[in-house]
Amino acid sequence: MKRVVLLSGGVDSSTCLAEALVDCKPEDVLAVNMYYGQRHDREIQSAKDIAAHYGVELMSLDLSAIFVRSDCTLLKSSDAELPTGSYAEQQAEAPGKPVSTYVPFRNGLMLAAAASVADSVGATQIYYGAHADDAAGSAYPDCSTAFVEAMDRAICEGSGGNAHIVAPFIQCNKAQVVKAGLRLGVPYEKTWSCYAGGEKPCGQCGTCIDRLKAFHLNGVKDPLEV
Amino acid sequence: MKRVVLLSGGVDSSTCLAEALVDCKPEDVLAVNMYYGQRHDREIQSAKDIAAHYGVELMSLDLSAIFVRSDCTLLKSSDAELPTGSYAEQQAEAPGKPVSTYVPFRNGLMLAAAASVADSVGATQIYYGAHADDAAGSAYPDCSTAFVEAMDRAICEGSGGNAHIVAPFIQCNKAQVVKAGLRLGVPYEKTWSCYAGGEKPCGQCGTCIDRLKAFHLNGVKDPLEV
Repeated sequence: MKRVVLLSGGVDSSTCLAEALVDCKPEDVLAVNMYYGQRHDREIQSAKDIAAHYGVELMSLDLSAIFVRSDCTLLKSSDAELPTGSYAEQQAEAPGKPVSTYVPFRNGLMLAAAASVADSVGATQIYYGAHADDAAGSAYPDCSTAFVEAMDRAICEGSGGNAHIVAPFIQCNKAQVVKAGLRLGVPYEKTWSCYAGGEKPCGQCGTCIDRLKAFHLNGVKDPLEV
Repeated sequence: MKRVVLLSGGVDSSTCLAEALVDCKPEDVLAVNMYYGQRHDREIQSAKDIAAHYGVELMSLDLSAIFVRSDCTLLKSSDAELPTGSYAEQQAEAPGKPVSTYVPFRNGLMLAAAASVADSVGATQIYYGAHADDAAGSAYPDCSTAFVEAMDRAICEGSGGNAHIVAPFIQCNKAQVVKAGLRLGVPYEKTWSCYAGGEKPCGQCGTCIDRLKAFHLNGVKDPLEV
């Protein structure tokens, strides 16, 4: 095994998997999906569908016990309603704070778990689909360049130099991620982004708004658009 | 909650918990123990006993699924025998490599999980009992100062400045950890270090040798010494 890819089943991680497969055989790639207590399992089913599409093995981990005390609105354990509106609008309400859908250090935990898996199977690269839009302002601090660089250093040091992070989209916005994915033929109809777990995407939560905009900026319709 | 303490039930983490309690009430401290697939649960029982002794709440997490493919000799999943001899002797056999009891990026994973827990409960400090002896050479790269510094930076950045690591023994050897613990009255008879899960410590594995030496250097007998 050469590469571990964090695969949530959304647009960014699915495109990241496609990138990892550009110069690597499917049997050398292990996708890792993590359940962290989110309200629905639509995204997890998407991760399975995307992994199956590309013929890569999927390792599923349940890390939800770690977040049982979090009041993040993305989680089953939260009583609060999911926020609507773009991340920029949400941030305007609480400047300098993460948005209410920020899951405490989730991406750090996922990268650490991926590092443990990578170092267990002899893989040296951990593909991570974070992009610049998510980190914008302080919406998701665990998507920032500063975080990814520090985490990469921690993984290099802590694994005795065995593993490191590859984040192909860290300088891109979401439209550029979609652009790369369209070129690579990512089956976006199999992905899922919406925080709500309805039949169709709600079109009103932060990630729906971001996703729709990213497709529109590429002059194409999101295959999930209702 | 103010502090999260990683508590394995061994000498170092138990002393670290005592340090965290020097200027903090037990109800403001949350101990976190992680099962990662080790061969026996003696240490986990010790973590429960130590937490009960100090009156702090213990959160137990099962992260063993992450390590199912590791061949680390510490794990149930490994067919290999546990090595005997000091870490220095083991390292002489494979210079520059981690020892066979190194669990892939385990400490990175534990710190990341502790950061998620801390950021969920509003704690700002993560107490971590790593010391300089473990990092010596390349035995356990995830105990080195360079690793802890990088991980601390990753946690600060990824949590939006909410949490950071406190590693009171990172510049100490194990004898100095025991010295601090003896002064603080740590109930070492309740701790467990041995990699084997017998009735009594084997006295021959790396951690037994280290532990015995640390007590002897302080002129006292390890309460678990047979």
